[in-house]
Amino acid sequence: MKITIIGVGLIGGSFALALKDKGIAKHVIGVTRSKQSADKAIALGLIDEALPLEEAVSKSDLIYVSIPVDTTIPVMKKVMDLVKGNQIVVDAGSTKAALCSELSGHINRRNFVASHPMWGTEYSGPEAAVHNAFAGRACVICEKEKSDLTAVAEVEDIYKKLGMNLVYMDAKAHDIHAAYVSHISHITSFALANTVLEKEKEEDAIFELAGGGFESTVRLAKSNPAMWAPIFMQNRENVLDVLSEHISQLRKFKSALEKENLNYLYELMENANKIKEIIK
Amino acid sequence: MKITIIGVGLIGGSFALALKDKGIAKHVIGVTRSKQSADKAIALGLIDEALPLEEAVSKSDLIYVSIPVDTTIPVMKKVMDLVKGNQIVVDAGSTKAALCSELSGHINRRNFVASHPMWGTEYSGPEAAVHNAFAGRACVICEKEKSDLTAVAEVEDIYKKLGMNLVYMDAKAHDIHAAYVSHISHITSFALANTVLEKEKEEDAIFELAGGGFESTVRLAKSNPAMWAPIFMQNRENVLDVLSEHISQLRKFKSALEKENLNYLYELMENANKIKEIIK
Repeated sequence: MKITIIGVGLIGGSFALALKDKGIAKHVIGVTRSKQSADKAIALGLIDEALPLEEAVSKSDLIYVSIPVDTTIPVMKKVMDLVKGNQIVVDAGSTKAALCSELSGHINRRNFVASHPMWGTEYSGPEAAVHNAFAGRACVICEKEKSDLTAVAEVEDIYKKLGMNLVYMDAKAHDIHAAYVSHISHITSFALANTVLEKEKEEDAIFELAGGGFESTVRLAKSNPAMWAPIFMQNRENVLDVLSEHISQLRKFKSALEKENLNYLYELMENANKIKEIIK
Repeated sequence: MKITIIGVGLIGGSFALALKDKGIAKHVIGVTRSKQSADKAIALGLIDEALPLEEAVSKSDLIYVSIPVDTTIPVMKKVMDLVKGNQIVVDAGSTKAALCSELSGHINRRNFVASHPMWGTEYSGPEAAVHNAFAGRACVICEKEKSDLTAVAEVEDIYKKLGMNLVYMDAKAHDIHAAYVSHISHITSFALANTVLEKEKEEDAIFELAGGGFESTVRLAKSNPAMWAPIFMQNRENVLDVLSEHISQLRKFKSALEKENLNYLYELMENANKIKEIIK
């Protein structure tokens, strides 16, 4: 199978490695924003060659788009205008409603499979790509019914070979769930980093004392703003909903402490403990 | 060296394992709240025998107190009244100011070394104890000057053998730093769990979609309220300070999204990225 990956960073680069590791593609073409990225991606063994978008698309059976969600829409429109016959276009974006809506009336809509492999780290760029990235994680496929049957089957087959668990939902439902289980975690982590940086001027003390708990909650604050700002903006209404709820939950802790209400504090924490039943 | 551990849970049990692994103590006595805990701790190989507090203290060179911080103060007073000669008493509490203040005028103050080994997981009880728990982490020793020189040297030697990095500060400074690098992370995590549990009724969707980011930020929400509620209450003022700042940092994200101010959103996230320089 001839595959082009548009955007060879954390996701695209890891996808390229997985394609080769699983024997799905021998030759992977990359489309990158800069020659520098292309050189890096080739040097790291992620792609075999870098080509301009039009040429890459014309040579491929499947085109995988893994770039920030704000640039995904214009790039996808361009790609969708170029595809012919049974070429398959897949995106890997963290938001789905805006893109699916933009492409809903496109003449080649059936060539497109909307997907979100739910894996990531706080790192970005070709250097962030890792082997065996997606195994054991969920991959959401949206609006399956709007895609060509064989295109969907092909994409499902690839994700399954990567070890992913397929989940199906409509684009709006995806964006709501993603706000809860991914986007809010990033905002709290960014805000926690800002809290500590604001209040704690003796940085050596943080460095020396910061234990496992702090590192795990603040890890996501290292994430790339160029990837996450567009996600938050595109999923603005859902993210604002969850963020408002989160602030009100924090205020409950504040109120329990202000009033020295130990019972209420216990109640809040015991309720939170129920997450054990969901996240093993 | 004969050592008694009062409270053989996550910290005390892991400390017991480390003492044996490093050849610091061959025989470890446990003091537990219930016969059930004692039996578990013996069955798990954490302690060799369980004794009542008075008898255990009388037979030991060093008494290690690792129980929730609300019970630490009365138990420590009892232990401090019992010690004689050059017996050493060490606590492992996550708050230091209240305890140090309570014991400041005690006739045996010099027998006491105030410590906080900064390691933990979201699990509790004897079953939560693990080997090699403390290696590479910071251990704070407070008010070193109020402890006997040889007692401090002995405690430092033990923590160093466990692979910990010793940090010295006064008790109030410890509590401020602990609020930033540990206590607030737990509150945000509890609140995040409550947010998701409140808003997301389709629990299967969380279970299926929750990726690495969510798990790492929400992990601490599994922590034991009986351990954490007393910590938050004892360090109430510092925790409230940091919590207020955290809520105001979250409001900045809310405001940036409400106003669709992409530049401000970038600015907030780029500032948060500075945490990279502190947490490698």
